[in-house]
Amino acid sequence: MLTVHHLGVSQSDRIVWLCEELDLAYELKRYDRDPATRQAPADYKALHPSGTAPVITDGDLTLGESGAIAEYILGKYGQGRLTLAPDHPNYPDYLYWLHAGQGSFMPAMMMDLVARAMGGQPAGAAPRASRSDTAFANIEARLGQAPYLAGEDFTAADIMTLFFLTTGRLYAPRDLAPYPNIRAYLERIGARPAFRRAMAKADPDLAIPLA
Amino acid sequence: MLTVHHLGVSQSDRIVWLCEELDLAYELKRYDRDPATRQAPADYKALHPSGTAPVITDGDLTLGESGAIAEYILGKYGQGRLTLAPDHPNYPDYLYWLHAGQGSFMPAMMMDLVARAMGGQPAGAAPRASRSDTAFANIEARLGQAPYLAGEDFTAADIMTLFFLTTGRLYAPRDLAPYPNIRAYLERIGARPAFRRAMAKADPDLAIPLA
Repeated sequence: MLTVHHLGVSQSDRIVWLCEELDLAYELKRYDRDPATRQAPADYKALHPSGTAPVITDGDLTLGESGAIAEYILGKYGQGRLTLAPDHPNYPDYLYWLHAGQGSFMPAMMMDLVARAMGGQPAGAAPRASRSDTAFANIEARLGQAPYLAGEDFTAADIMTLFFLTTGRLYAPRDLAPYPNIRAYLERIGARPAFRRAMAKADPDLAIPLA
Repeated sequence: MLTVHHLGVSQSDRIVWLCEELDLAYELKRYDRDPATRQAPADYKALHPSGTAPVITDGDLTLGESGAIAEYILGKYGQGRLTLAPDHPNYPDYLYWLHAGQGSFMPAMMMDLVARAMGGQPAGAAPRASRSDTAFANIEARLGQAPYLAGEDFTAADIMTLFFLTTGRLYAPRDLAPYPNIRAYLERIGARPAFRRAMAKADPDLAIPLA
């Protein structure tokens, strides 16, 4: 039985969402953060050597890392849904947006958080656009070309990227006024029944910022 | 013609290495960082909206993001080499280590760099193991189970992870004495002809730290 171990208000919400979009039979196991430290509880950290969310179990397998879990679930249970095949003209776009969330956007956000926790700009740094600014500009431009990140169709690339645009902004606030394409996209995503089911199951007490 | 746009002393060295391991016909275009700021030059930043390395071009396609580029090259030119098929028992390991470098290890290193640039621990933070410490412990444990990250065979997962263990330590120094499995692994990697060819082409003046 596929089990999604979801840490509250964390990136594992995207795996819950993936399962809902694929309409899979899966078990959802929720773990709450320590209310004081906001750290994952010890039983979550013990699931996988990474100590971080998400983690899934499936029979004897324990697997971490969002991108790996997404590719595993899509390959084993997806039957070709939510992906583009290698011969699709937008396949490189699919790959780019499948990887960029974890490879560039989330690291940019984490760097911003560390910088903010330490009180501002790095010593000696000249003011310049942060990597997060570049990421938002990149996404805004893409969503001016196509309704979804890989192109005409909603795919797992959207699922991988969304956290940066929504829950991530609870940690690193950003006004979406300058990003009309992102705002319209978040409206489209927020209307998806599977997204709404997933967020209601994953974080019932959280108002996901869609605007 | 496949062209690898390599920014000197950057993560794009892994794409050069991938091409050498696959023995591809490709063009290597080198770009040097600004000697004072260490930033990428303007013509590199203009290649792709991300502004970061690596970038490839292939006919009309321009593609960024290490993981996306690796999957694209493997799918189009790899003929099954350096990957594990979905029915291989180690396929989940392959996926995990293919993604963890960019999804966890490099972000951990970037967070360390921001923290160091700003002069130490985040305000109010209790001393605890950094995410980089966890990453090194995770990799060391894995290399006690198998000679390569995905298992018995060298794969693209090794190519994706290595920068964190080698060139990354030029930015975030770490003594490898407590990590005998990683040290033995780096010796195996350093003996690979394709690795040596790649590093000689990508950064001829750089002594990649393999110990």
